[in-house]
Amino acid sequence: MQELLPSSQAVFDKLKANIADVFHRHGFQSIETPVIDRTEVLLSKAGGDTEKQIYRVVKTEEAVEESDQALRFDHTVPLARYVVEHENDLAFPFHVTQIGRNYRGERAQKGRFREFYQCDVDIVGRGSLPVAYDAKAIAAIYDALKTIKLPGMKVRISNRKVLAGFLEALGLSSKTTEISNVIDHAEKVPMDETRNALTALGLDEKNVQNVITFVGANGSPDEVEAKLKTALSDLTLVGEGLKELRIVYDLLATMGMRESITIDLMIVRGLDYYTGTVYEIVLPEYRSIGSISGGGRYDNLASNFTDQKLPGVGGSIGLTRLFYALNAAGLLENVVTNPVDYCIVPISEKEYAYAMNLADKISAEGKSVDVVLLDKKLGDKMAYAGKIAKYAVVIGEEEVATGEVKRKDLTTGIITPLKVK
Amino acid sequence: MQELLPSSQAVFDKLKANIADVFHRHGFQSIETPVIDRTEVLLSKAGGDTEKQIYRVVKTEEAVEESDQALRFDHTVPLARYVVEHENDLAFPFHVTQIGRNYRGERAQKGRFREFYQCDVDIVGRGSLPVAYDAKAIAAIYDALKTIKLPGMKVRISNRKVLAGFLEALGLSSKTTEISNVIDHAEKVPMDETRNALTALGLDEKNVQNVITFVGANGSPDEVEAKLKTALSDLTLVGEGLKELRIVYDLLATMGMRESITIDLMIVRGLDYYTGTVYEIVLPEYRSIGSISGGGRYDNLASNFTDQKLPGVGGSIGLTRLFYALNAAGLLENVVTNPVDYCIVPISEKEYAYAMNLADKISAEGKSVDVVLLDKKLGDKMAYAGKIAKYAVVIGEEEVATGEVKRKDLTTGIITPLKVK
Repeated sequence: MQELLPSSQAVFDKLKANIADVFHRHGFQSIETPVIDRTEVLLSKAGGDTEKQIYRVVKTEEAVEESDQALRFDHTVPLARYVVEHENDLAFPFHVTQIGRNYRGERAQKGRFREFYQCDVDIVGRGSLPVAYDAKAIAAIYDALKTIKLPGMKVRISNRKVLAGFLEALGLSSKTTEISNVIDHAEKVPMDETRNALTALGLDEKNVQNVITFVGANGSPDEVEAKLKTALSDLTLVGEGLKELRIVYDLLATMGMRESITIDLMIVRGLDYYTGTVYEIVLPEYRSIGSISGGGRYDNLASNFTDQKLPGVGGSIGLTRLFYALNAAGLLENVVTNPVDYCIVPISEKEYAYAMNLADKISAEGKSVDVVLLDKKLGDKMAYAGKIAKYAVVIGEEEVATGEVKRKDLTTGIITPLKVK
Repeated sequence: MQELLPSSQAVFDKLKANIADVFHRHGFQSIETPVIDRTEVLLSKAGGDTEKQIYRVVKTEEAVEESDQALRFDHTVPLARYVVEHENDLAFPFHVTQIGRNYRGERAQKGRFREFYQCDVDIVGRGSLPVAYDAKAIAAIYDALKTIKLPGMKVRISNRKVLAGFLEALGLSSKTTEISNVIDHAEKVPMDETRNALTALGLDEKNVQNVITFVGANGSPDEVEAKLKTALSDLTLVGEGLKELRIVYDLLATMGMRESITIDLMIVRGLDYYTGTVYEIVLPEYRSIGSISGGGRYDNLASNFTDQKLPGVGGSIGLTRLFYALNAAGLLENVVTNPVDYCIVPISEKEYAYAMNLADKISAEGKSVDVVLLDKKLGDKMAYAGKIAKYAVVIGEEEVATGEVKRKDLTTGIITPLKVK
């Protein structure tokens, strides 16, 4: 589990607050579901690994088998339950953000944590949801990440329907899952390994080459279409996917992201439940960090809980992992946090009341203020101020008598008059 | 567990953000400890009830007996571990705030939740900590609660040393715990019941009356001292406690709280580990709500983890319970939240790009903006806007051509020009 010192925690809190603020400005409403939920709810979606990793919650007198509660491992499953439970009180398309901690009992690994923050946005429609909303969800995530001022952020977009149509046209539909897995891994391995994996799936030489062409198709919608045509003369079956991709691409381009987006058919996203748009955001200059956000379109949020169709689109920022990775790469040094602004240092107890009043006034201007109440020498008090604050304000008899106070910049040592209303 | 609709969640989030902001402005640094910690750490302080209420965390393949992890039930125990673990990286007196969820498997009860937010401040000294810091911790909590604009908030302060000295002077030291319990409950029961309980503890008639006098001592330091003198002619043994009470009272009075504070020796606070100042904050007009914050001075934060002496003072706001109680009492209706400000309604897909750009510009001014991308009639789109936003901005061909847009106040129906930079 991650545990930070106050100075790092301030950076983490700042990133989190910035992300929440952008989500809110994009019209997303915040909700918080309980961290503890019924096991059968949480496992309704999960597969094998998740079931192994889930933390069950047990009261002292219970046995594990009796326990029907566990810790949520993502925000999606509790959201599905929430939407079904509160359906009549929500406005659809429901623009929702969840920022909180989730839990997975994974094997300990560098940069992986068992308790981790996720910052999610989802737009959930009732019955249907136009594909334009996919652009909206991606834009919210992108704008949120922009507040961290990361270098050269790129959004890679694909659409599951393009792959499905492509494989259908080649007569390979029956192997969609296996081929998707190979494509999903293609980026991490040499091209030859991808070819071998496709051959091992029984694809003939021509189809291996066709899939390789598919994997290499990226750029603008026109470029991708041209590339696909070299493998497939008739694009009818991939038409709907391409059309959706174009809508999402064009909308994002008009939203100031033209330079940052690229269609990249190599993007698959592991989770089975994506059905249309999929995206991930990367920092090409820092490949080791991997994707810093991902998500996509799903046909049905809550098929386990309701017959009502609730299509949606969502994205997630894994903030704990991201914070760790960005810190390791030295990319968080430009995040300006707001530690204690002023430390007021009364020379003796006689100045406490004056110091407290001054603190109230400075604080009313939105600054953070500490007052040193230690029964120690001035030097010790200043040493404390130097550890925590930007400015020190010494208050002695003279300051109380004249009302004229000065602040000392604890970095530069420069002393200037302090004016407080 | 509490789960809120988005409109209530916005109020809750607002209270939480205001509290965090005040704590920060008072010079407190934020930390977050893991929700899951080792059972032996968490239970190091706990007594019987806590042990029964604690949630153990178990991986699927484990048995409860093997599990060495549990969910934290307060912020104090993890803080003790944190301070000891990171001692060399912290500045003392360490001003720390923790705002997060804690867990207790209590019996379900109205207004009590098993998952609940606590907003804590603590000031932890190394070796010693002047009593003036007690005022600082109380002031931070009081100012934080002031942001909720509650009617007639009162801070009741006492000091455990006054009670200890008083009982010693009466020769009743051996019954301190039992008498404390009776005093702690005195407010909730008729005076006769308190008398009977004291008599049952073996106190003679005179001492019963002395303790009753003690329980009724409240007001300014002078008033309290005068009252105590009617029971005890020599106040030497309660002198230190009274002196500390006076320091805390006087400092709080200079900080603008003169009208809100009262010394009240009836205040004991249940927890054993308080050793000096104790306080609670109440709304006398809403007695059923009970105390809305409490805390005090402890001699040693982490005696279970270190030989180092770490005296401190802290306070806590039980935000989940408080939110529930204030809501039930209708006291949160004046909390202004910031739902979606603008809902932009493009008439057709042709105006999407213009609408998205406009949203960016409004959002850059710090407002929250949603854009309706539904393939529906204008009336349906306006109905959605009416559910979530303050203003609607309809964008058709004319608006795109002229660049002149109007906003409609969705409450009053008034339409005015919208100027965006």
